[in-house]
Amino acid sequence: MSQFRFELQHVDPTTGARAGCWHTPHGPVETPAFMPVGTLGTVKGLLPEQLKEAGAKMVLANTYHLALRPGADVVEELGGLHQFMNWDGPILTDSGGFQVFSLAKLSNLSDEQVVFRSHIDGSLLELSPEKAIRIQEQLGADCIMCLDECPPHDVGTERLREAVQRTTAWAARCRDAQKRDDQALFGIVQGGISQELREESAAGLIPLEFPGYAIGGLSVGEDPSDMYRTLEFTTPLLPKEKPRYLMGVGRPVDLLESILRGVDLFDCVMPTRNGRNAMAFTSYGSVKIRNAKYQRDATPLDPDGPSEVGRTYSRGYLRHLFMAGEMLGGILLSWHNVAFYEHLVRQMRQAIFENRSGQFRQDQLARWGMEP
Amino acid sequence: MSQFRFELQHVDPTTGARAGCWHTPHGPVETPAFMPVGTLGTVKGLLPEQLKEAGAKMVLANTYHLALRPGADVVEELGGLHQFMNWDGPILTDSGGFQVFSLAKLSNLSDEQVVFRSHIDGSLLELSPEKAIRIQEQLGADCIMCLDECPPHDVGTERLREAVQRTTAWAARCRDAQKRDDQALFGIVQGGISQELREESAAGLIPLEFPGYAIGGLSVGEDPSDMYRTLEFTTPLLPKEKPRYLMGVGRPVDLLESILRGVDLFDCVMPTRNGRNAMAFTSYGSVKIRNAKYQRDATPLDPDGPSEVGRTYSRGYLRHLFMAGEMLGGILLSWHNVAFYEHLVRQMRQAIFENRSGQFRQDQLARWGMEP
Repeated sequence: MSQFRFELQHVDPTTGARAGCWHTPHGPVETPAFMPVGTLGTVKGLLPEQLKEAGAKMVLANTYHLALRPGADVVEELGGLHQFMNWDGPILTDSGGFQVFSLAKLSNLSDEQVVFRSHIDGSLLELSPEKAIRIQEQLGADCIMCLDECPPHDVGTERLREAVQRTTAWAARCRDAQKRDDQALFGIVQGGISQELREESAAGLIPLEFPGYAIGGLSVGEDPSDMYRTLEFTTPLLPKEKPRYLMGVGRPVDLLESILRGVDLFDCVMPTRNGRNAMAFTSYGSVKIRNAKYQRDATPLDPDGPSEVGRTYSRGYLRHLFMAGEMLGGILLSWHNVAFYEHLVRQMRQAIFENRSGQFRQDQLARWGMEP
Repeated sequence: MSQFRFELQHVDPTTGARAGCWHTPHGPVETPAFMPVGTLGTVKGLLPEQLKEAGAKMVLANTYHLALRPGADVVEELGGLHQFMNWDGPILTDSGGFQVFSLAKLSNLSDEQVVFRSHIDGSLLELSPEKAIRIQEQLGADCIMCLDECPPHDVGTERLREAVQRTTAWAARCRDAQKRDDQALFGIVQGGISQELREESAAGLIPLEFPGYAIGGLSVGEDPSDMYRTLEFTTPLLPKEKPRYLMGVGRPVDLLESILRGVDLFDCVMPTRNGRNAMAFTSYGSVKIRNAKYQRDATPLDPDGPSEVGRTYSRGYLRHLFMAGEMLGGILLSWHNVAFYEHLVRQMRQAIFENRSGQFRQDQLARWGMEP
């Protein structure tokens, strides 16, 4: 694990927000950092060089999806994920657990493993902690995840506790199953929005001494205020000297709020998914570009924003692309949105060094027309 | 029209193939040249900078499509086509005639105008020579086309003759209707595969002294050998000192054969459409990348080819993108194919200067596994 080193560079004393640098076998990642999501080994619609130009340093790929198509053995045979998707920076894979519990049809869940039906062809498949590690070693990302159980946000406390306990037991098995020493394996803290369960989860995982910790089971339908509150009592449970990754989060405001609560790493499909659906994040708030009012609007999408796309293409042209069903619309807005996210966390990082991270959040919310 | 100048730089005496340079208000275009097609103001899936990197100097946009969506007045209000689509090189628009006669449902055709139903919403629309020029002046391309009548390839001689005569009459009206002096208006020679009708068409158009001539009514379903034969007797009818544009052609082999027969300019949807449909043109022939034999093929698509994509992405990865329905598949193959086409005509241009254009065609056909 010596190929990984997390350098905590600064903590804003006014908020607790952290700036760091995470060194990986495929280069350093300055934190806080946002990872665009490349589910099937491609961040939808964007080339690797476009991701880099947008400021992305690390990307995420989904184990569940890749294991079904094209298969982990195929990715391995094609040189592993970096070679496969032509991305020479760091990559993170999830364990597949989240998709098994959300996308697939569960067939049987036991302490041993989970049996489910593929959402592609309905075939019966099994995932165990050992298998999740084996697949992620075939895929070959820099950072890999323990198999966790992620129940829906509205289940009762007993069901949540069961998931926490299973997640802890599975984490130990994952650690024992790991063979490659060039991948950082993270434990995942579960426990919904319950302080007691988050404490129980952290207490179970920290003795296993993972090189980093993910926070799972948030942004799964609960109220944002519940998520923020949960982070407030969860991040203090985690080792200061290790990176903290909040899975699947979120809106720009969620990134800022979570960074203020001590999170270092994020991933979310939102910039690309919303981009494909004609929604742009801009320095003056979000924009639904299909709106008829943009038809003859020759102003660039975001003239003062950080993205080349936003400074170049008119709202009228972008609207036309979506109205005509042209691929370029989704491509341009995805690229723009990723650049927006990357710029946002980079600015926040700068604000942390200057001990004004709280003020930065307030200023951004005011710009976006949100309640501070 | 002084903003345009066609410089005939060399004619290969062994074949008659021409190398030239066409100077336009948006820069020079070395010929022979291939224009990617940006039907709705976007070459599907590609950014302008990607087109340039692929070697494209000039693009085509379709008047019919843009007039329906977003409307020529909208394009004009958004700064004209160059500004609209963020392309600062030369642009050519067709007249809309071809789409009216192929895509739309014809309602009434007279010497005065053609009345048709939009293929988008079925609304009743009219197109006259004057209107075709007016719309193209609103769009603002560098090179615009006379409205022509393009009947199906299998109609009888009398119907073809009627189309030739109408096309000539409309060409005169187009010339008279032209107001802008920064657009080169081309006449279009029609006449199917009949030598007599092509002669009649050219004889009617050449006295109108257009700055360039298009050859229409080919690649509409006739046999390639008929197209080549038609070019053999048509190009000698056209002024040597003016550019010659073969509309809507074609396959790589068609480009080579047509250049040998004295054509300078081409456009075709094939590189992008085939790219989106998982077909790649490569230096060793065309490739259907969905083929199962590529599943575990780690070789780059076209290791010795001219495109960065072809030298970088493995066949296995490209296949995966298409099997998983990922946008990036169509993007990468479109980009690759455009680069292939541009490289091909650039190589052919070089061969013309070196008086080996016939040999170049033979060598290429042999590489592609085609009968020479």
